[in-house]
Amino acid sequence: MKIKYELQKKDKNTKGRYGILHTNYGSFETPMFMPVGTLANVKTLTTDQVKAEGSAVILSNTYHLWLRPGEDIVQKAGGLHKFMNYDGPILTDSGGFQVFSLAKNKKKDIVEEGVHFKSHLDGRKLFLTPELSIQIQNKLDSDIAMSFDECPPASADYNYMKNSVERTLRWAKRGKDVHSNENQSLFGIIQGGAYEDLRRLSATETVKLDFDGYSIGGVANDGESKEDMYKAIDYSIPYIPEDKPRYLMGVGDPIDIIEGVIRGVDMFDCVLPTRLARHANAFTKRGKINLRNSKFKEDFTPIEDGCDCYTCTHYTKAYIRHLVTSDEALGGSLLSIHNIRFLISLTEELRKAIKEDRLLEYRDEFIKEYQFKHE
Amino acid sequence: MKIKYELQKKDKNTKGRYGILHTNYGSFETPMFMPVGTLANVKTLTTDQVKAEGSAVILSNTYHLWLRPGEDIVQKAGGLHKFMNYDGPILTDSGGFQVFSLAKNKKKDIVEEGVHFKSHLDGRKLFLTPELSIQIQNKLDSDIAMSFDECPPASADYNYMKNSVERTLRWAKRGKDVHSNENQSLFGIIQGGAYEDLRRLSATETVKLDFDGYSIGGVANDGESKEDMYKAIDYSIPYIPEDKPRYLMGVGDPIDIIEGVIRGVDMFDCVLPTRLARHANAFTKRGKINLRNSKFKEDFTPIEDGCDCYTCTHYTKAYIRHLVTSDEALGGSLLSIHNIRFLISLTEELRKAIKEDRLLEYRDEFIKEYQFKHE
Repeated sequence: MKIKYELQKKDKNTKGRYGILHTNYGSFETPMFMPVGTLANVKTLTTDQVKAEGSAVILSNTYHLWLRPGEDIVQKAGGLHKFMNYDGPILTDSGGFQVFSLAKNKKKDIVEEGVHFKSHLDGRKLFLTPELSIQIQNKLDSDIAMSFDECPPASADYNYMKNSVERTLRWAKRGKDVHSNENQSLFGIIQGGAYEDLRRLSATETVKLDFDGYSIGGVANDGESKEDMYKAIDYSIPYIPEDKPRYLMGVGDPIDIIEGVIRGVDMFDCVLPTRLARHANAFTKRGKINLRNSKFKEDFTPIEDGCDCYTCTHYTKAYIRHLVTSDEALGGSLLSIHNIRFLISLTEELRKAIKEDRLLEYRDEFIKEYQFKHE
Repeated sequence: MKIKYELQKKDKNTKGRYGILHTNYGSFETPMFMPVGTLANVKTLTTDQVKAEGSAVILSNTYHLWLRPGEDIVQKAGGLHKFMNYDGPILTDSGGFQVFSLAKNKKKDIVEEGVHFKSHLDGRKLFLTPELSIQIQNKLDSDIAMSFDECPPASADYNYMKNSVERTLRWAKRGKDVHSNENQSLFGIIQGGAYEDLRRLSATETVKLDFDGYSIGGVANDGESKEDMYKAIDYSIPYIPEDKPRYLMGVGDPIDIIEGVIRGVDMFDCVLPTRLARHANAFTKRGKINLRNSKFKEDFTPIEDGCDCYTCTHYTKAYIRHLVTSDEALGGSLLSIHNIRFLISLTEELRKAIKEDRLLEYRDEFIKEYQFKHE
């Protein structure tokens, strides 16, 4: 079946909304944070470890799986769920963002038919089209597929952006025309940078194509300011039907998630929790901390008091510091668990705040504590 | 309390024996395989993941913990169990083997007082003595500590070996004299290479010092042959009292474990399962396989049919191959889980074989299948 979004409650003072996303693998509350499993695994963690932290949808990357192991192997395995052992919903992106960010030397040749670029692995010539992206995703058998879009740089001028938005619309239609997996939902992607009229154009025309949900793209590419991100959301949301989920792509900073929810976003994804973990960083309510810091040498308390994640209920900062300073990979795994839980837990609190009509108060309290300066 | 070994059943045809090891953290059957957690973690795995595969005693390394994070920090954490979150028994080695194998450039200066050598991390000058080794282990608060011994190379001549055995005896006594942790058992180590009279000397004199258990050392140093290993065991075991556990240090090859059990060994440890895993290798009953092999590309069966480990019950060879060829660390973690379970499971089967007086038949059947040549 296709996913179905059910609106439950709006926050009185903002565009924030609480809802339920019904999927092939159960029903899940929104707003939600989706951990990223680029190569069919959330780095270093088993799916049981990810589920234990309350994951609902997790994300995997079409471009990466296309190269390794290839969509045919995933299909032969019985689809991505079986292949990676996840019995929750999976969303695949389209590859558009990776073409933008990972193409060898960032060189690519965008033509009407698709994008010519070279593999980030071996420089092999590749050609990805809207049709191919959807066909790959059909085979991966994710629950939610993304339309193939162009991700223009933040610095693109108005004319470039306008042409790009129009091409992305044509690509969205082409992808939708070949989409053939009845159990897979397809999202359209709204682009247009920080230009109000282009976001409106992109949103209204994408909605006319009638997708199962809508993403707001182009906010986490390369150099977008926070203001531009908020504008992009504000300029897009009003045109998305209320009964469809709204997904802000690639955003995982806690304050950005809060600001996104206030503006009406339902779904977020980001590699930030696992990437920070690999660099020994942990989210806390008082901002990020680096576990390499010698002040944690004899700190036998959890990363965050009161945190219910596996890491905080079993391990201390002193132990994790020992692991990360000794280059033991378990340190990064434990930090990934904590950071993923931190963002999932944040969305749980945001849902509660919406139910209580106190989203703005929650934001102010959160920011006050989060921006606390560590001595 | 100190550990207590309770002999339950001897194999009719060999020296193999089934027993129970009573510890501060519960009672466990022997023969047992002990996974190694060098730096207070079994590489890449949580202790819950290790316990789920049936671990009893796990091992940690005094030398490594002395350098990082330092025994005082572990003591302040409440001991090694609390520090690393393991509520099963823990054994610490003495550092003697690491001085032998890890000293910078393998240079060391052995004097009667102890060993001068340089840190493998930063070349800093270090001096480890029998007393210091025991004092560090007392602070680590493991359940079983090891005496500090000299690990002579396999190539050592008779005279070198004789002097070394005598020094190790003096060191064993000095260590025992300062041992002061009432909840910690202390093992003596039998050395003597493949010389029958030196093993006898080492064993009888070590036993006179009355330890809580006895290790057979010098069998996994550097270049010992299988024959020498079996001799070392055969020459040592007869002098160890039946009511004390016998631990063969550093041995994890499946066939060596079987041969050790047949010769009367109760406990084994080795880094092999995790080290093999990092190189994409898995134990199977038909010998080792390398998961990088392209023949596993579309092999949607577990590493070993019928294996009850977490990896085999959740993941396929094709998936693990995808992970290891994509340099995803989860691949190594899943292989570590399987390999640890393989050796623990092997000891379970050996215990059953002892109970049924068919240890020799078990060995022959195992070897026949294990040496099967993969096409």
